[in-house]
Amino acid sequence: MHHHQSPEMKTCIDNCLACYRECLSTAMNHCLEMGGKHTEPQHFRLMMACAEICRTSAHFMLIGSEHHKHVCRECAEICSQCADDCERIGDMQSCVDACRRCAESCQKMAA
Amino acid sequence: MHHHQSPEMKTCIDNCLACYRECLSTAMNHCLEMGGKHTEPQHFRLMMACAEICRTSAHFMLIGSEHHKHVCRECAEICSQCADDCERIGDMQSCVDACRRCAESCQKMAA
Amino acid sequence: MHHHQSPEMKTCIDNCLACYRECLSTAMNHCLEMGGKHTEPQHFRLMMACAEICRTSAHFMLIGSEHHKHVCRECAEICSQCADDCERIGDMQSCVDACRRCAESCQKMAA
Amino acid sequence: MHHHQSPEMKTCIDNCLACYRECLSTAMNHCLEMGGKHTEPQHFRLMMACAEICRTSAHFMLIGSEHHKHVCRECAEICSQCADDCERIGDMQSCVDACRRCAESCQKMAA
Repeated sequence: MHHHQSPEMKTCIDNCLACYRECLSTAMNHCLEMGGKHTEPQHFRLMMACAEICRTSAHFMLIGSEHHKHVCRECAEICSQCADDCERIGDMQSCVDACRRCAESCQKMAA
Repeated sequence: MHHHQSPEMKTCIDNCLACYRECLSTAMNHCLEMGGKHTEPQHFRLMMACAEICRTSAHFMLIGSEHHKHVCRECAEICSQCADDCERIGDMQSCVDACRRCAESCQKMAA
Repeated sequence: MHHHQSPEMKTCIDNCLACYRECLSTAMNHCLEMGGKHTEPQHFRLMMACAEICRTSAHFMLIGSEHHKHVCRECAEICSQCADDCERIGDMQSCVDACRRCAESCQKMAA
Repeated sequence: MHHHQSPEMKTCIDNCLACYRECLSTAMNHCLEMGGKHTEPQHFRLMMACAEICRTSAHFMLIGSEHHKHVCRECAEICSQCADDCERIGDMQSCVDACRRCAESCQKMAA
């Protein structure tokens, strides 16, 4: 079974699920335990928004919807902002990396 | 508690969750049982994509993310296509109505 | 279209989506802005777990899966704990009410 | 950052997301295109229920909720049924394998 997914799409699904995992886990464990800047509403919401859009982008690619392009475009935008904000706060390099990787491959799917 | 949601946003969340509910339930019950045109891949995928984007739009408004505007814009687009396709196949008027109502209020949120 | 949902199940879906909405919105807005006890990891995680299981319970009933019974049982358990914890912290009565209502109707579906 | 996840939990999250991916993609592409037994309501619903509970199990482990044990127990049960049903219909060995692997690691987390 090939599921009609190109190698680029498979990689993008990998990156979306990896970023979902990293953002959700970091927010709900590291950020909650650190507090302070880490639970500042705007930052915390951005991490949770990032986790959610990554989950949704992967879902759209998995169900084979043509609309994945628009969802991936929004995903790239949010991941990019999330990477910047995690970098600003510091102490979350693996999250920054996952966001940048996901933004890059979603950008390609959106093109 | 007001959760920072305007009356328009509350209505939009209502409409998104109602449309999620109607599309998912119709696809997984009515369409699967009818078969034929109802399980034609392009139609069935569109209904499931519509259910998913409605769920995600509501989620973005509930978490208070500014990015809800872009998700709502995509939601309006998918709901509108889903309404047309359910109308074409027929026999799914309550789904058509839920999709049109959701598209209209998501359009307002996206503006 | 009847979607095979009994009146009791329709009410339970209503209550699950209402509780999802209330818990998610309260956690991501009220709790994040209040901080202190409201973002204490154990409390915040419980609210987010409650939002997620309510979303999933509704989903299982909407797709017509027999397994909704077991998901509803777990949902009742988590909602009940979440209600108690919101009551302990105070200031979240609408969340307490939504959790108790959802727990009660999920308990019936699980029976 | 360690996210408080043991190696066993990390493996279980891997297996849940792999199974979510396989079941959702197979149902929405292979099954919809094959039709016949593949879109028989009971089978198709089971695959979609399996995808959803795997997504939810991973989510509970990622947010660090103690309730993941109960969700994992239900996940193991549904995955096991889904594996049997995919085996009965045939032609979906990669789905059978993903379900069995997920069932096994969820069983361990539930213990």
